[in-house]
Amino acid sequence: MAITVVGSVAFDTIETPAGKRERCLGGAATYFSLSASFFTDVRVIAVVGEDFGNRQQAVFDAHSIDTTGIEHTAGKSFFWEGSYLDNLNEAKTHTTELNVFAAFEPKIPPAYHDSEFLFLANIDPVLQRRVRDAMPGVKLVAGDTMNYWIKDHRAALLEVLKGLDILLINDTEAKMLAGNNNLVQAARTVLALGPKVLVVKHGEYGATLFHGANTATDSASEPEIQGTKIFRAPALPLEEVVDPTGAGDSFAGGFFGYLTSQPEQTPEAFRRAMFYGSVMGSFACECFGTERLQQLTRKEIDDRFTLFRELTHLD
Amino acid sequence: MAITVVGSVAFDTIETPAGKRERCLGGAATYFSLSASFFTDVRVIAVVGEDFGNRQQAVFDAHSIDTTGIEHTAGKSFFWEGSYLDNLNEAKTHTTELNVFAAFEPKIPPAYHDSEFLFLANIDPVLQRRVRDAMPGVKLVAGDTMNYWIKDHRAALLEVLKGLDILLINDTEAKMLAGNNNLVQAARTVLALGPKVLVVKHGEYGATLFHGANTATDSASEPEIQGTKIFRAPALPLEEVVDPTGAGDSFAGGFFGYLTSQPEQTPEAFRRAMFYGSVMGSFACECFGTERLQQLTRKEIDDRFTLFRELTHLD
Repeated sequence: MAITVVGSVAFDTIETPAGKRERCLGGAATYFSLSASFFTDVRVIAVVGEDFGNRQQAVFDAHSIDTTGIEHTAGKSFFWEGSYLDNLNEAKTHTTELNVFAAFEPKIPPAYHDSEFLFLANIDPVLQRRVRDAMPGVKLVAGDTMNYWIKDHRAALLEVLKGLDILLINDTEAKMLAGNNNLVQAARTVLALGPKVLVVKHGEYGATLFHGANTATDSASEPEIQGTKIFRAPALPLEEVVDPTGAGDSFAGGFFGYLTSQPEQTPEAFRRAMFYGSVMGSFACECFGTERLQQLTRKEIDDRFTLFRELTHLD
Repeated sequence: MAITVVGSVAFDTIETPAGKRERCLGGAATYFSLSASFFTDVRVIAVVGEDFGNRQQAVFDAHSIDTTGIEHTAGKSFFWEGSYLDNLNEAKTHTTELNVFAAFEPKIPPAYHDSEFLFLANIDPVLQRRVRDAMPGVKLVAGDTMNYWIKDHRAALLEVLKGLDILLINDTEAKMLAGNNNLVQAARTVLALGPKVLVVKHGEYGATLFHGANTATDSASEPEIQGTKIFRAPALPLEEVVDPTGAGDSFAGGFFGYLTSQPEQTPEAFRRAMFYGSVMGSFACECFGTERLQQLTRKEIDDRFTLFRELTHLD
């Protein structure tokens, strides 16, 4: 069993109240794959420039992530510079240089074609669709997107949504996509666009899973709000948020990595996946860039899972 | 066992996207006592004007709330007019008329003096302190406050905090009180000011309980973040928020009402109280003013408690 993920591998310069770091290894596919690698095999499709060297490669290798699908081309990798000085919940972008990413044409290595699971990280929906169509054999497809694609590339995005089993986005994106400020109503509208399951990430307040009837997670015992079934996972109140960059992608990696590592995607597996997502998102915030994910152990992950259970369970 | 609550009984004119209602029965003490009345005996201390008549009295009587301590004076009751047209999470105040409340001097009926529990709703901290001092025999004291008292009446408020077992406030108030934008750090600062337990309400995202060591809720098994123990309760994602007025006071009523109805305030009782608080807060939002609380049954409350458990528990 393996997940193929397509998305960005990038360098980020990040400033937060805790300090500043130049050119950290980043990008949605990087955070996702590091996070998911604690649960299952991960294969990456991305493009990088000449600035991606042995040091960056070693980060993937240390987590046994298959990087056959990372294309190396002339030029510089995707670069983003941003800060969170006023608000840790919202990045202020200073610079975005697409560089080699501007001409990204995802190429799927032959060995990736037996992947059972596919994650479409936040990239141009036209590319998401192309990769999804090129891998018709996958069992479960999850994906992410962002406000830019929702606002200005809606038609292409709607095509992607039709082919998704699970969409993971944040509150603002869900409400924008649905054109509705009520989360439950917005969720119902989004589910009608194609995804069988919608996971809405609330940042420091955790995440909510919504699904309709007749899905993999369907069960008569699930709590239901007027036909939409829901589950909430908390986030850990953190003593210090060093750098929130990549928390959402790390959530997605923990969620989808755990879920697909299970023999069946039962309702219970979905609930536990929500907790593992929150666990991985909380770790990602504890250091700059992917530093914390790089150092993490499975025991730390499971200990925090236990803490999350105690934090929320009545007995 | 009974709770004495001191606070406002008022009339509210409220406009939300769902419509407008003129002069609903409102006030923190009203929401709190209606909510708590489903769990325990409640006695109210407040002041009202001549506009408080049989119809309003009947609401309290229907829930067997002791209103001996509601003083009737010449003039008009406290009146508030506000709207939530742009943002359901934040009221825009149009009018505040203190009326008879301006000269409120809480008088404690002799029969209230055997109350084991005291709730100081959001009023002038000088009055909160006076009531607290006049009831030295109570077993547990909880209280609320707001940004106005935190900013402009800090010295008086700090005196109140020294005498509180449990403080219930929202995110913004907790961070403002502590002068710290990190919730965990803010909670630790607030706990050092006196309260043994701090409950921070997150509106649509639920609430978090923080406590230090050596409290009623102390237990080696509680999840600990660097010495501060925590528990999170969810809020129900609501299909339609008709009117959020009084949700926080209804949370407090459900929380403190359930907690004090238990033979002992164990860690488990605190956790269940957090859930009952969220349950009552969610009902309060479903109709204008106290309409939903007035019609509520204990069975509906327990059914929603069960839903909240399913919504958050792994199995």
